[in-house]
This record gives sequence, C-alpha cells and structure tokens, in this order.
Amino acid sequence: MTRRKPRHFADDLISRMRELGHPLCIGLDPHLGKIPPVFARGDMAPASEETAKAVEDFLLAVLDRAAGKVAVVKPQIAFFEQLGHRGIETLTRVVDRARSLDLLVLLDAKRGDIGSTADGYARAYLEPGSPIEVDAITLNPYLGLDSLEPFAARAEAHARGLFVLVKTSNPGSGDLQNLELADAPVYGAVAAALQPMAQRLEGKETGWSSLGVVVGATYPGEAQTVRERLPNAVFLVPGYGAQGGSAADAVKGFKPGPGGLEGGVVNSSRGILFPEAGDTAQAPAWEQAIDAALDQAIDELGEAVSKGRA
Amino acid sequence: MTRRKPRHFADDLISRMRELGHPLCIGLDPHLGKIPPVFARGDMAPASEETAKAVEDFLLAVLDRAAGKVAVVKPQIAFFEQLGHRGIETLTRVVDRARSLDLLVLLDAKRGDIGSTADGYARAYLEPGSPIEVDAITLNPYLGLDSLEPFAARAEAHARGLFVLVKTSNPGSGDLQNLELADAPVYGAVAAALQPMAQRLEGKETGWSSLGVVVGATYPGEAQTVRERLPNAVFLVPGYGAQGGSAADAVKGFKPGPGGLEGGVVNSSRGILFPEAGDTAQAPAWEQAIDAALDQAIDELGEAVSKGRA
Repeated sequence: MTRRKPRHFADDLISRMRELGHPLCIGLDPHLGKIPPVFARGDMAPASEETAKAVEDFLLAVLDRAAGKVAVVKPQIAFFEQLGHRGIETLTRVVDRARSLDLLVLLDAKRGDIGSTADGYARAYLEPGSPIEVDAITLNPYLGLDSLEPFAARAEAHARGLFVLVKTSNPGSGDLQNLELADAPVYGAVAAALQPMAQRLEGKETGWSSLGVVVGATYPGEAQTVRERLPNAVFLVPGYGAQGGSAADAVKGFKPGPGGLEGGVVNSSRGILFPEAGDTAQAPAWEQAIDAALDQAIDELGEAVSKGRA
Repeated sequence: MTRRKPRHFADDLISRMRELGHPLCIGLDPHLGKIPPVFARGDMAPASEETAKAVEDFLLAVLDRAAGKVAVVKPQIAFFEQLGHRGIETLTRVVDRARSLDLLVLLDAKRGDIGSTADGYARAYLEPGSPIEVDAITLNPYLGLDSLEPFAARAEAHARGLFVLVKTSNPGSGDLQNLELADAPVYGAVAAALQPMAQRLEGKETGWSSLGVVVGATYPGEAQTVRERLPNAVFLVPGYGAQGGSAADAVKGFKPGPGGLEGGVVNSSRGILFPEAGDTAQAPAWEQAIDAALDQAIDELGEAVSKGRA
C-alpha cells in the first residue's frame, strides 16, 4: 500500500489541476470486448484468470502513459466486479500502481446504503490500510444524508473526497432527478441539502470542498443550477466525448481561478482507452494511439478552461 | 456453479413461501466484530486471509441451519467488499453453497449506474455462468428507468428478480424519498414509474412480479401507498427486528393469498446471525442460539401472515 501525506483532498486535486492546466480525468472502464489485441488473451471470458490478467496488463500500461499527464484516474468498479474475485484482485493492483505513480484515485462505485452497511463500504475504500484504499469515491444520495455520514466522517479524518450523484449524464436521468418539487427539481433539492456537508469539508488552501458532486456534461444548464447551490463543491463531469458533451459544455459549472476556469474534473473513459486507431496489435501502434487521444483531450479541455482566467 | 431450472423468480419465491408459511429472509451481514468466538480467527483484520476464512466458516454454518427453513437468503455485499478480493471469493463460495442447498439468493448490492456500466453490473450478477450468479439483486433508482433496463432484460431472459429501492428503513430516508412533488412524494412517484416494468415481469402462475421493491418495515404507512401503485410487486422489507419494525408493521404491504398474507419477504440480519445468547464459544451452544432465533422469527412472522388468509 502506498502511503501519501494526508493533504486535504480538494486542495490537493485542485492544486494538481492548476499545475497541469487542464481538468481531464481518465476513466478506467475496461470493456472486455474492446481490450486492444496487443493485451487480449484467450477468449476473454469473464470468469477466466487470463481475462483478469489481460485487463491488468492493459490498465497498467494505460497508467504508465497517464502518469504525470493527469491529476486523477477513475476506475469503474463494475467492470472489475464482472470478473469476480479475480477482477477485484486486478483492481487492487491497478489502484496500488496508480497511487505509486502519484495519481489520485477516484473509485467510481456509486455506493449508497444505510447504517452499518454504509459504514462497511466507507471502511472498504476510505480507511487507511484497507485492501482497496482510494482517495475518493462516488456515492448515491437516494437513501438520504445519514447514508452519506460514514463517508463524510472518513473524508474529514483521512482527507478523502466524495462525489455525490446529483444530475447524471444519461437520457433517463430526469425520470427522478428532474421531478418538480414546489420550488425546485429534485436534483436542485439534493444539491441544496448537501451544502452543509460541503462547508464542513472545505479546504483551507483553495476554498474548494472535498464534498464534490456528479453533474453530467450532457446537461450544462443544470450544472449552473447546481453551482448556485453548491458554490465550492468540486464537480465530477461525466459525459464528455463518447457520450456527446463538448469541452465547453463540460466546464459549464466551473468558476474563474488563478490559472483559468476551475472547480471540476472532466472524465473521459472510452475516448482515451479505446481510441479509433488503426492496427493496435503491436505495442508501438497502441502507444501512439493512446498518447494521441490523451493529448487531444488535454488540449481541448485545457483550451476550454484557459478562457476563464480570473 | 449450481444450475437450477429457470422458473419465473416471483412465482418460485412466492410458492416457496406459501409452502413454508412465513416470509422470513435471512440477511447475511457478517459484522467482523460480532463473529461468534467459535468461528473467529486471529485479530479479524479486514485484509487478512484468516478473517475471510472465519467469515466463510461462519456463514456456511448459518446456511446449514437455514436450509429447508427459509426460502431466500440475502448476502449484503458491503461486508464482503470490506475484505477485498478475498471477501469476494468468500461471497462466491457462500452463494454457491446457498444455491446448492436450494436456497434462493438475493444479493443486496443496491447497484445503480448507466449504460455499459449498468450492463456490467447486470452481467456480473444475473448472467448464467458469471462468477457470482444470484437469483435476484437490489437496485437504486436515482439514475432513472434506463439505468434499470439491463437488469430487467436479464430478469426476463434468465428468470431473475429485481428489488428497487423505493422507501428505505433508515431515519434519513425522507431527505430525498419524501420530498413532496405536486401530487405525491418522490417515493410514490418512483413506485408509479416502476409499474410498467412490474407488469412486464409478472408471473403467470401467482400473478406476482419479479420487479420487486424495497419498503422498510419502519414505515408501514408508506408501504400502503406503495402497494396501491404497485399491486403485484413483491416487497423486500428490511428493518424488522434489530431496526425496530414489528412483525405486524413488516407485513403492512402484503395482500391476502391462499395461505395467508403474501407478496413480500421480510429480512432479518443481526437478529438471526447474532442472537443475544450466552456463551457461543462452543459449537453446540451457538447452534442452539441460532436455531432459537430463527424459530422465533419464523413463528412471529408466520403468525403475522396467518391472520390474512384469503
């Protein structure tokens, strides 16, 4: 387990992004059917040991390309759970490697449960020395504020970050999130309810909070509404690239900072991991393809944030 | 992997409960600090191999006591995730043993995600031949109906069951679930939105649907509201026993059936797994304690449902 000095999560994240000049986060979503030929092994059946090894080789190679270029990576745990316990072993090694490369790790797990079960999840991922120790995690608010408390307690004690779903990027996100209450949609009420927790987890250095929220790039108007209610919550923005959100849409909830627009991380998964390149059966071709995809996303997002220097 | 003939999930579950005369489901929540002395090993640290083995021994012994007495068991995945990949290996063996003892397995995972990620979770737990193959799973509706679709597709194709969170048992559940829309609270709107999916997954034999919902025993009034909107959804009722809901409260959303009130499963975790008994350092004392707790819950719930014979 790599040890890191416990710096406030949002202060750390925002400082790193200021230095790099862009808010790109690489989503580690290893779709089995898309693993490049240079890494694939056997028939890629979910239960096989070979498949877990292929996923691991692929992601460790991606991390080597990403190190120094981005502040944070976001493994999507569903793709590891698919592979059973071997997938979780792979995830453990991917997380360890990322942290040893000095990348922040945001686990996309969207967990949400109550009482001792919520405590179990918080212990699983945010406790120092736990088998899979990450810097931040995504959470689902449907069960209410008490369900978030065990995570907030770890965020305070161990300098972790939380990203609570507020307005997600999918077409059906409005089914519940946009239901209209007397004075606001549900997602707006959720954002408002999170503000005390955001204040509690505020960083002394940058003013940004370790209580972040998920706001899809596909709904830039909603991002403004959420920003009004949560002025210092860091946004995790999915939906950029493959899901159709532009770089300009992705930074809609950002605010002017010392080096440009800031206050969010923009995730790209498929766009980086599986670029539409020619033949990636050879390692050099694959490396070129992924470097190009990475650089293009960094340029695009860097340009989008540079327009808002404070 | 044990193979079972693919009978419609709700038809199977309801038939089993009619035969047994009670709706008790045993929740498999292995709290590390509570594992009886007869099973505990070493210091019970989450990352140790010994801990995973202790949890496995304990739960396999519980399953042996439960076989033939209940229709369904509900492992809570958070307690296994705490133990890292070894915990998931333990869960795999617990699930396999339960199914080989002819117990239905309902995985309490409360997953919710979008697109290919939701598909990854559905593939992980509801696909035949997946590393951890269960009969049913709990889901979170915050991300909307499209996020449930990959699970509904598996429920249809492979006779699985789904239990969507509607009104949870915790004190903070009202923060979001009871927000008032123009004509209903949020949980009521969620229940109403699920009705088409409930109709689609209706069983030919009993009329009950494999689209179930979670409705806490601690909110019996809300259970009635949900039942009006979802007449044939099977209720998964947490909060009975340790969380303070009575047997009578737990069956509030049930309906008269051929053998008594039916249409739900009532979960008890701590009340069964960790009964307040004397010295459980010896296997016979532990077996007596757990049998007594199991029989008491069965009697209590059996009596509660027997009052409503149709």
